[in-house]
Amino acid sequence: MTNVLSPPISELALDAFRAALPDGAVLTDEEELRAFRDPFAYATWDEYTASAVVMPTTVEEVQAIVRVANEHGVPLWTFGQGRNNGYGGPAPRVKGSVLVNLRNMNKVLEIDDECAYAVVEPGVRWFDLYDAIQAGGHKLWLSIADLGWGSVIGNTLDHGVTYLPYGADMSAPCGMEVVLANGEVMRTGMGAMPGNRAWHVYKRGLGPTPDQLFMQSNFGIVTKMGIWLMPQPACYMPCWVRVWNDDDLGPLVDTLRSLLLDRTLEGVPSFYNTLALASVLSSRSQWYEGSDPIPDAVIDKIAKELELGRWIMRFALYGDEPVVDHKFAKVKEAFERIPGAEVWGAKHDPNEVAKLEHPADLIQAGVPNLAWNTMTGWYGGEEGGHIGFSPVARLTAEDALPLRDLLRGTIEQKAGLDYIVGGLAINARSFIHITMVIFDTKDEAQARRAYDTSKLLVTDAAKQGYGEYRAHLDFMDLASDQYSFNDHAYRRFCETIKDALDPNGILSPGKQGIWPRAFRDGRGTSPG
Amino acid sequence: MTNVLSPPISELALDAFRAALPDGAVLTDEEELRAFRDPFAYATWDEYTASAVVMPTTVEEVQAIVRVANEHGVPLWTFGQGRNNGYGGPAPRVKGSVLVNLRNMNKVLEIDDECAYAVVEPGVRWFDLYDAIQAGGHKLWLSIADLGWGSVIGNTLDHGVTYLPYGADMSAPCGMEVVLANGEVMRTGMGAMPGNRAWHVYKRGLGPTPDQLFMQSNFGIVTKMGIWLMPQPACYMPCWVRVWNDDDLGPLVDTLRSLLLDRTLEGVPSFYNTLALASVLSSRSQWYEGSDPIPDAVIDKIAKELELGRWIMRFALYGDEPVVDHKFAKVKEAFERIPGAEVWGAKHDPNEVAKLEHPADLIQAGVPNLAWNTMTGWYGGEEGGHIGFSPVARLTAEDALPLRDLLRGTIEQKAGLDYIVGGLAINARSFIHITMVIFDTKDEAQARRAYDTSKLLVTDAAKQGYGEYRAHLDFMDLASDQYSFNDHAYRRFCETIKDALDPNGILSPGKQGIWPRAFRDGRGTSPG
Repeated sequence: MTNVLSPPISELALDAFRAALPDGAVLTDEEELRAFRDPFAYATWDEYTASAVVMPTTVEEVQAIVRVANEHGVPLWTFGQGRNNGYGGPAPRVKGSVLVNLRNMNKVLEIDDECAYAVVEPGVRWFDLYDAIQAGGHKLWLSIADLGWGSVIGNTLDHGVTYLPYGADMSAPCGMEVVLANGEVMRTGMGAMPGNRAWHVYKRGLGPTPDQLFMQSNFGIVTKMGIWLMPQPACYMPCWVRVWNDDDLGPLVDTLRSLLLDRTLEGVPSFYNTLALASVLSSRSQWYEGSDPIPDAVIDKIAKELELGRWIMRFALYGDEPVVDHKFAKVKEAFERIPGAEVWGAKHDPNEVAKLEHPADLIQAGVPNLAWNTMTGWYGGEEGGHIGFSPVARLTAEDALPLRDLLRGTIEQKAGLDYIVGGLAINARSFIHITMVIFDTKDEAQARRAYDTSKLLVTDAAKQGYGEYRAHLDFMDLASDQYSFNDHAYRRFCETIKDALDPNGILSPGKQGIWPRAFRDGRGTSPG
Repeated sequence: MTNVLSPPISELALDAFRAALPDGAVLTDEEELRAFRDPFAYATWDEYTASAVVMPTTVEEVQAIVRVANEHGVPLWTFGQGRNNGYGGPAPRVKGSVLVNLRNMNKVLEIDDECAYAVVEPGVRWFDLYDAIQAGGHKLWLSIADLGWGSVIGNTLDHGVTYLPYGADMSAPCGMEVVLANGEVMRTGMGAMPGNRAWHVYKRGLGPTPDQLFMQSNFGIVTKMGIWLMPQPACYMPCWVRVWNDDDLGPLVDTLRSLLLDRTLEGVPSFYNTLALASVLSSRSQWYEGSDPIPDAVIDKIAKELELGRWIMRFALYGDEPVVDHKFAKVKEAFERIPGAEVWGAKHDPNEVAKLEHPADLIQAGVPNLAWNTMTGWYGGEEGGHIGFSPVARLTAEDALPLRDLLRGTIEQKAGLDYIVGGLAINARSFIHITMVIFDTKDEAQARRAYDTSKLLVTDAAKQGYGEYRAHLDFMDLASDQYSFNDHAYRRFCETIKDALDPNGILSPGKQGIWPRAFRDGRGTSPG
């Protein structure tokens, strides 16, 4: 009997994993494996399914898993929590891979008050680290992602975005421990020197810095990471800017850029179109019954009734109260030069931020929650899904407006779906245009259209020079194909390193388009 | 007749270089080669000498050089300007290497006002980029190094320090073009996508980010780089803190850390001991005739007469005037809790900073100069030399004081030299303890003692867990040896990548302790 969810892995390999790990650390039951699919794939789709899950608790167990994988030629696929649902969740690129589920490596190893950082294992979630900071009475704030259930390390390794000051250019991580494909444990930066106290305070070492080589790649399994924390600010003021015309996006981003460039604003201000926040606060059926994209007139109505404007931006000010006051006045004056724009915010006691109600106020204060997860219910209630399509663009009107037109056109006209987006100003010069392709996962035709549309977006955007900052499992290869300068010199560079570090190609083959030698001829198919 | 400065390279290889390059782009004359030695090595020392210099003007010529080197098995050694004099200047690790001198690749390719960045070739100096910004009327400030003659790219690739806000964590560079050892041109980050406009505004791409792999390494020759510029601030206020007791270093760094952690201070504040600034402002013989280290009583006298204190720190405030005023008051209050400490500064018109007199005021405003180069004249007038020994430490009293004692002890007691140091707060959590081992280059015994002492410092510091952020040519291997976690896992990782990318081992063999396979048995000797 064939098992569509889990193609058979050799019993010999499974026995070797079982022998190497404690009881219960190897899962092969079909029902258990179901939890590790692409969470939004239609129920019968079986392209990205695993044959087993292994759950190490220690670095030594990770080394043992790598050893068994090398001996038996088993492709592994690693995740911290596997909650990057808009990009495929914990599902492997290669069908039949063994998932290395790091959720049991969940210790906060250190919180350093003096130098304001923590050291965590890969299963530690935003929730866990936040709780550990609170439990220890540390007056330190953590730059978090929108959803608190993700892994701190996992999010970092996928170039995930967080929103406090250290979210800018993803600057919080510092110093890693990695298990390489040959089973060796390596420490990066100053950690390469035994007993060096600067491992998690200085981002480099002597010689080339490998940390970013382990992000969006398949060159190693990160088992420890330092992450910088921010001392609790004297004053915290989350704010909003709202504009009423779709084309106000232009002056909105130009003004934002200038306020970030002169460092009036910090962190990662994020702007959303009407439907993005409407999808958090309401269901589509409250507004529109048609199966075609919601027309502008209805969007205007939603914008007004939910008081969202056509674009609304969240940002926060942190610091001494006089500085916050000065900055707020400056920001307000700058944005309100856009006709009809409104800017507001409120100062809060930094000791009491956990009691705030609005998810944006919590997120920007580093208090993890799951409020924004309701977004995917737009079409299908609790069964809603989304695909993230996320190109990077210059933070300018000159780029933001044409990119909006391009993506909206493809999504509405080719997929018949609503255009639901967030723009994350990852630094003063660029933003990530998170396009949420939201659909009803129970509707196979709509789901297929959503996946197909996302692929269209990849190529349509690349033609205009816009590339993704991370890619969904289902179009990693296609997204990677667009990075073709000099006949794919960058991909060949990655492949050369991959083959050298992982000659058997066991670590996450296909991750972000990087395939080991053994797979490159029959790209994307499971071995033997 | 043997030529000590330039061991013979095969005429065949030289002819191939000459054929591949324009007339005059290959230097082999002994007198010309003399300019490319370790500038502070004693005159007859010949360990780090080249056999030829090639001077490409275009990327295609760099590719041609790499091709010839592969065909003829010639080790290359690349530099932008070769002005990192305290670390060996342009001299090659392997005797007889061919120097790839990039000074003729000196074009500022682009200055983008909207997103505030420039794109430069590797021969562009701080002077050149500054001049180009001024000539174009751009209101943009450049984070520069202490000496304006260095290469922007060369400094970046060696993890060199700059001092304005983008100096923190060396965060200015963004997006590279690299010629690999196989002669291929690769672009990193978004530059890997043809026509992508975000190459120099977003620091990553899709997949692992290789940029830092080309720093302090020998994996490629960087031919273009983006560098972020800062919009001219509304107000510029360079400031000083001075303390009078040697142990005031402790509260000085603890206070500094807290002001950086809460982002009151930006950039890279730098503190110096009395003798460091005395060496800029005066000669040793004005103060002391003994050949033993200057005693504390004389240091106190210098501290008083030159008004330097025992430690003096420069920093600068940038921003809107009310914010600068608030910050200055806060900083002053914080540091003046140290008994006897004084804090002062003056606001300047940002349009007129080029007219400022003090080199620190110029440097922190991004106006390149050479004033601090007089430092090395401490012992020997214009013929003075220095070796940089530069470990990284946590920015805490708990680390700064013992590290000072350790290094001062070794320098004074084992080398009989003065302890002359700067501490660069490269971020809020760590500092680079630049130890200037200054000596008279005409005194062979003193020079030898300085080089030997530096090696002692490497091992003495490592025993306490302090490692160098970059290493002088003469002890790159020794410095690298200290990064031995898990039996040198990090070095093996680098070697694996080196062998894969550069199988013939032509690119800068031995750079920061990374040797290609062909050299590893006979480590550090020139091939056949």
